[in-house]
Amino acid sequence: MAFEKKELKKKSENISEWYTDVILKAELADYAPVKGCMVIRPYGYAIWEGIQQFMDSLYKEHGVQNAYFPLFIPEKLLNREKEHVVGFAPHMAVVTIAGGEELKEKLIVRPTSETIMYEMYKKWAHSWRDLPILINQWNNVVRWEKRTYLFLRTSEFLWQEGHCAHTTHKESLETVLWALGVYQKTYNELLGMYGIAGIKSETEKFAGAKTTYTFETLMPDGKALQACTSHDLGQNFSKAFDWTVLDQKGEKLHPWQNSWGYSTRSIGGLILSHGDNAGLVLPPAIAPIQVVIIPIPGSSEGVFNYARQIEDELSNMTFSGKQIRCLLDIKEGETAGFKFHKWELKGVPLRIEIGERELKDKRLQASSRDILQRIELKVESVSAYLKDIQNRMYEKHKKFTEDNTHKVDSFTEFKDIMTTRRGFIQALWCEDKFCEAKIKEETKASTRCLPLDAKEEKGECIYCKKPASHRWHFALSY
Amino acid sequence: MAFEKKELKKKSENISEWYTDVILKAELADYAPVKGCMVIRPYGYAIWEGIQQFMDSLYKEHGVQNAYFPLFIPEKLLNREKEHVVGFAPHMAVVTIAGGEELKEKLIVRPTSETIMYEMYKKWAHSWRDLPILINQWNNVVRWEKRTYLFLRTSEFLWQEGHCAHTTHKESLETVLWALGVYQKTYNELLGMYGIAGIKSETEKFAGAKTTYTFETLMPDGKALQACTSHDLGQNFSKAFDWTVLDQKGEKLHPWQNSWGYSTRSIGGLILSHGDNAGLVLPPAIAPIQVVIIPIPGSSEGVFNYARQIEDELSNMTFSGKQIRCLLDIKEGETAGFKFHKWELKGVPLRIEIGERELKDKRLQASSRDILQRIELKVESVSAYLKDIQNRMYEKHKKFTEDNTHKVDSFTEFKDIMTTRRGFIQALWCEDKFCEAKIKEETKASTRCLPLDAKEEKGECIYCKKPASHRWHFALSY
Repeated sequence: MAFEKKELKKKSENISEWYTDVILKAELADYAPVKGCMVIRPYGYAIWEGIQQFMDSLYKEHGVQNAYFPLFIPEKLLNREKEHVVGFAPHMAVVTIAGGEELKEKLIVRPTSETIMYEMYKKWAHSWRDLPILINQWNNVVRWEKRTYLFLRTSEFLWQEGHCAHTTHKESLETVLWALGVYQKTYNELLGMYGIAGIKSETEKFAGAKTTYTFETLMPDGKALQACTSHDLGQNFSKAFDWTVLDQKGEKLHPWQNSWGYSTRSIGGLILSHGDNAGLVLPPAIAPIQVVIIPIPGSSEGVFNYARQIEDELSNMTFSGKQIRCLLDIKEGETAGFKFHKWELKGVPLRIEIGERELKDKRLQASSRDILQRIELKVESVSAYLKDIQNRMYEKHKKFTEDNTHKVDSFTEFKDIMTTRRGFIQALWCEDKFCEAKIKEETKASTRCLPLDAKEEKGECIYCKKPASHRWHFALSY
Repeated sequence: MAFEKKELKKKSENISEWYTDVILKAELADYAPVKGCMVIRPYGYAIWEGIQQFMDSLYKEHGVQNAYFPLFIPEKLLNREKEHVVGFAPHMAVVTIAGGEELKEKLIVRPTSETIMYEMYKKWAHSWRDLPILINQWNNVVRWEKRTYLFLRTSEFLWQEGHCAHTTHKESLETVLWALGVYQKTYNELLGMYGIAGIKSETEKFAGAKTTYTFETLMPDGKALQACTSHDLGQNFSKAFDWTVLDQKGEKLHPWQNSWGYSTRSIGGLILSHGDNAGLVLPPAIAPIQVVIIPIPGSSEGVFNYARQIEDELSNMTFSGKQIRCLLDIKEGETAGFKFHKWELKGVPLRIEIGERELKDKRLQASSRDILQRIELKVESVSAYLKDIQNRMYEKHKKFTEDNTHKVDSFTEFKDIMTTRRGFIQALWCEDKFCEAKIKEETKASTRCLPLDAKEEKGECIYCKKPASHRWHFALSY
């Protein structure tokens, strides 16, 4: 696609307007001609492919296998687990006509696949020998939304959903935490994002789960983003589906199940966390283009040849065990300044400019996107420098999150923070949902999670003053 | 999943019953609790992943980028190209309720994505500089079917759909043929299948295309399987969508478009072409497990250690540039015979059995799945032997196709073949759709394609005796 010079809205002035603007202008995604849906354009989809590759190899290493289950779920199947259907009913898209005829039984476009998958698991597994089942699928799901937001909340989105079944609760819980660990690793190491792993409150947990584990990240506007979830389903679904297997003693056992999902919403978090007034800032590990090489337009043939040589050398080097992804920009009809602007908007981590002087001195003039600083580099140190950028971006997001996490012991201060700088609030809470609702009503902050590493702490609830034993994370959420 | 000894129906007695039976018993797929839909189980999905990897790298090499467009197409958008909507209307699944409300405009679950994609292309590209657009997506589509058949015809299926736009017809046609070439390569080199590349008749072409190119394969029952298609859309859609770009002279131009698709149906062809009475037979290039190593149950620890050593050695070797995929079967509670039967059913190309004698003599006793023959092999020759199997399977399918391709010059003989051994019939046809319909009515055979390499041949139509200049391929189709 042609690239025209486009003035970007400023992140520092209005992050919400900037967010949409940068997505459209960097050509990550576009609004679709269907209400609430989006088109993920090649540059945005390449980010999703990077995430898929990273996670999929970790799944396979662990013995999880990919499969594919149908898009449509018969209404009666979805109704099987009562809490589950209540949670999803308001967001369902329903097929009532197919092949020119009114359907006798309505089909729900999957909002998630627990019910259709577990009906099959029940058919396949009858003995402890058939367990564990470790299955994942990469697919599209539909949850109809009134208010949508590119990547962060769309009526259709892409994700992976893992669904496992075990003979013991202990084993199932290990899988739940392993999956959460994969998510955390993906955020930390690939997307350069820090976050808090924890447990959801009863109100906030997944419809049908025993316990929901979550990874919560903090955005620059002080709002929290639920970045992914991993659910301990207990025996809720195996009981609702009347699914038993024979254990080693020949006795009937309801399998222990879990499900875990990670979606294209993560790309929204990535954009918000790192971007700046000049556009996207992508961490090298996930950037579709890690290094852009720009021979200054109008230079001699020698400069272009030198640029090609640098491209060759870089393409033969690796970053994080993979070939460095570099692009030589020799597109005609664009000035150097235009090119710099274009790749800054697209968030390419490292820009190398080559002119007559660089050719003469055989050196590289580079510019680091995250700090917008010019540096001198040697070809052989590009990979190490990309690693520096990756670390710097993660540390910056970690520091931002820590700087905006407030340990609070009075509700006045709680309200005060929520009306000003926001961020995570760590406060003691009695774990009563009445208090949780009142806090949300008065401050808009909801419980985000109880961190996995939270220590017991005797005290009183920030709201009702009754005894409380744990400090929860609260925040205004996306 | 546990594996029980299962008697398989015989392919030689009833290929149709065998086909369903082998899919279920080899755990490739299963019937879903939704009419006409299937669950692709991990073993079947691994085949699809192999196909995806092979094709996706060829697409990327060619500059095609992946993206994602919405599942739902507003009714009015699908109605834009008249022939297109007429072709797909009888197979549509329609969402009429979403988010608890009746929708003002119905949404069609995509049967293919031309309309929703080209609406976006029109928004993105305004100048010849914005072309070509080379975009592909891997997704699910829905075409409601009354009679379904695992893999070969299901109401929902997985596929890739490539959609390109060019400034000239010549360039667009080059892309059409390049895509067809990728498909042919995939069938030949990955799936070990032979076939005929050609052009569809006016009646059989894609709804909305100018010309449809196809790859047709012959199944053991003498029926042809349309294995994939690549469509020259001409300017049909750009005109219907009123999409123009400015050419180099500043004049308006309707872009030339093409679309091409390859689906999970190909797995049905793979199963049918190569399988035998003992089960699946998978060509090494696509087999999820290429070599299974079975230490004879009850053997000494030395045998198991030797088996592990062989596994290590093989895992460090490559076949077709990738690590050999091998599995050591040390599952307890199964006899050697049971294990042999199990992996034969699953079509693993090479089985290596290790007992006391193999340990003592440091040799390998192997069994080749395609010819069900025992052979002696050295570890270092495993990769070369896998290559032999791959070639043998392709040559066998090629010979079968050639042996069952009949050059026919009388309609009596045509009818005779179609009521007995079937296969491809090469016959002169006047290219009038009336004749085509009469031939189908009287013989059930439809035109499959005019081969790309067909030479002009003056003669008379097999049916109406009017002048005809090309010999078309006819067959009973799946």
